[in-house]
Amino acid sequence: MKAEILSIGTELLMGEIVDTNSSYLSAQLPPLGIDLYWISTVGDNAERLGEVLARAWSRSHLIITTGGLGPTKDDLTRESIAQLLREEMVVDAALEERLRAGFTRRGLTMPSSNLKQASLIPSTQSLPNPRGTAPGWWVEKEGRIIVALPGPPPEMRGMWQEEVLPRLQQRSTGEMLFSRTLKTAGLMEATLDEMLTPWLSAANPTVAIYAKEDGVHVRLAAKARSQEEAQAAITPLEEKIRSLIEDYIWGVDDDSLEKRIGALLLERGLTLATMESCTGGLLADTITNVPGSSNFFRGGLVSYTNQTKMALGIEPELLSRYGAVSPEVAEAMAATCRQRLGADIGVSTTGVAGPDLLEGKPVGTVHIGVVDGHKKHITSHRFQPNRLSVKRRGALTALVQLRRFLLSQL
Amino acid sequence: MKAEILSIGTELLMGEIVDTNSSYLSAQLPPLGIDLYWISTVGDNAERLGEVLARAWSRSHLIITTGGLGPTKDDLTRESIAQLLREEMVVDAALEERLRAGFTRRGLTMPSSNLKQASLIPSTQSLPNPRGTAPGWWVEKEGRIIVALPGPPPEMRGMWQEEVLPRLQQRSTGEMLFSRTLKTAGLMEATLDEMLTPWLSAANPTVAIYAKEDGVHVRLAAKARSQEEAQAAITPLEEKIRSLIEDYIWGVDDDSLEKRIGALLLERGLTLATMESCTGGLLADTITNVPGSSNFFRGGLVSYTNQTKMALGIEPELLSRYGAVSPEVAEAMAATCRQRLGADIGVSTTGVAGPDLLEGKPVGTVHIGVVDGHKKHITSHRFQPNRLSVKRRGALTALVQLRRFLLSQL
Repeated sequence: MKAEILSIGTELLMGEIVDTNSSYLSAQLPPLGIDLYWISTVGDNAERLGEVLARAWSRSHLIITTGGLGPTKDDLTRESIAQLLREEMVVDAALEERLRAGFTRRGLTMPSSNLKQASLIPSTQSLPNPRGTAPGWWVEKEGRIIVALPGPPPEMRGMWQEEVLPRLQQRSTGEMLFSRTLKTAGLMEATLDEMLTPWLSAANPTVAIYAKEDGVHVRLAAKARSQEEAQAAITPLEEKIRSLIEDYIWGVDDDSLEKRIGALLLERGLTLATMESCTGGLLADTITNVPGSSNFFRGGLVSYTNQTKMALGIEPELLSRYGAVSPEVAEAMAATCRQRLGADIGVSTTGVAGPDLLEGKPVGTVHIGVVDGHKKHITSHRFQPNRLSVKRRGALTALVQLRRFLLSQL
Repeated sequence: MKAEILSIGTELLMGEIVDTNSSYLSAQLPPLGIDLYWISTVGDNAERLGEVLARAWSRSHLIITTGGLGPTKDDLTRESIAQLLREEMVVDAALEERLRAGFTRRGLTMPSSNLKQASLIPSTQSLPNPRGTAPGWWVEKEGRIIVALPGPPPEMRGMWQEEVLPRLQQRSTGEMLFSRTLKTAGLMEATLDEMLTPWLSAANPTVAIYAKEDGVHVRLAAKARSQEEAQAAITPLEEKIRSLIEDYIWGVDDDSLEKRIGALLLERGLTLATMESCTGGLLADTITNVPGSSNFFRGGLVSYTNQTKMALGIEPELLSRYGAVSPEVAEAMAATCRQRLGADIGVSTTGVAGPDLLEGKPVGTVHIGVVDGHKKHITSHRFQPNRLSVKRRGALTALVQLRRFLLSQL
């Protein structure tokens, strides 16, 4: 099946936002055995959108559009599809009611311009959008499919996973690409590249290495006619690679470090508290992104000044002897939040996010503490001297160290 | 001048990398008075690349390609341009010498496959690439321009800044696009659309409305021959629009809400503390993204359970009488962090992030408190019932309310 993606929106042509939707969707197609040949970006212009859509219709079996489903006059995706297929848009009573109910629930009156979001054409099934007001369209006609998705990435991804993916899976035949991603922390990209050299040039399954925000990923991919056939090709390879780097692997596929840690804590009936300086709340924020985190996360303290550290229970003498950015204070912070918030384990970060030196210590210095009342695990790090990356790498590394701590307890 | 961008590379169609080159280049064009109408992504396939290039040649004055300039058989950009223009590729002796010297300097022998990187066609000037081996091409023929840039972003950006931008600036004689963005919070996209209807169809200056993470943006853009001329067109329009929505505008252009609030607090010598429940640390994290925030942000408390709320000083009776998700507890939380962390102003969030109901209150309910010891400002909200969006909208709305509180003190 030949596919094509259309990203719709003038803001994409103005460089105001990066088109992450296209790369998300591109990565979703190979496992379905769907070949993506073109991605086109076009603005909110009826003539050019119509042209691009007509060309896609003439050469692709599956057209996925993102954007242009909003309530304003600039949102032209529905109108353009209706025009291409020479069908008329009609307001659907059930959709209208659902749309109005959404506004009412939030205590709002629906502006009349939103009404077009409840419109359909005869060839369309509407796709529910629990995250926003714009339902998607699933259009089937003359052996071709158009899927119209909303532009905001959370709405687009949710609708893709819940509505579009299951429908496409049903139709998928022939060879598909299956992949398995091993997520590592603690190894450099180049080191992994050397360790895995013998497999990197193989044709099927393929092995590829990607440096990502949360560490380095190793991706094994096999072309096969079924999940079982792919599994048979990937499993022995995964075992060989695991035998080399098992200690560095923290998860697979769409695992996140915080989800894995949450599961570990729940499994053991342990609770967690945090005390952050340089990460400024990002560690607690990351942990509480996990649904159900209130079952293991007691809470966090963000102490952005020495005065606050003391108000929350850090000894003044410790701060004056070692400085706030020190392994000693990291340990005291981890112990303090653990005690104050009544948790089994305390985790802390203290460092220099910049732009300026602190206590003569360079930007990028971060100390991390993990304690449980019996054991402590204190580590020191030096990250790229950039405020946001110190925060991100600091929070990520705190999670990596917390995971090590939890596993070493076994 | 009508422009078009072609992103070339099969890895873009596999979702293995995000195309940041296109958004970088898109943002560079408006100040040059160049209109970008299309972005197309195509794989390393001679036939499809040839088609896309021919279409671009037929409809655009300026074609910018990125990628496909490497030494392998898959790198087809040069060959495709040569074929389109029916010109022959010839190895340039000076380029070859420079290329070989680069390899020799690194103690390497140049593989013969690299030789094609030293090739030119008669209509081409080569563009030096001090960051890699692939020189770019500047092609001029029949009143059209093709610029072929390498794919790796640092090489592409360097060549754009040093070689392409100066050449395009020299030619840019006509009109350029200048814009002004008004950032609002508290108004829906559709409501703004209705309020600003009279201007939305105007040709110059144009007015457009975008729903973003941090609220709805109104973008005024004028085509003009100079900054002054653009200003003269935009200023009266901005004044008219401001007279309608002034209360909802919190910033302009690349302002962020947290930066604006940081500046307000510093200006008045005020300090801030936070106590968060449903936003789980995201509010503190957002505030500490601002460089220099340690000058006004004392710190934050994240109380993710009732036990933690009590440990940090919330009265048990208040929790049992009103529930943790209540305006009363929001107020108590704001007062508590203010007192405990010795700040002038306390801000709090308490709500239901989901996935489950809490105290029988629906997912999406959020109460926000702002207090300063004299005054209090407590508001209640209902957001989309999705964990991450409750966190994001909760933290953003807390900043919006904090700004209102600060401004109402004047």
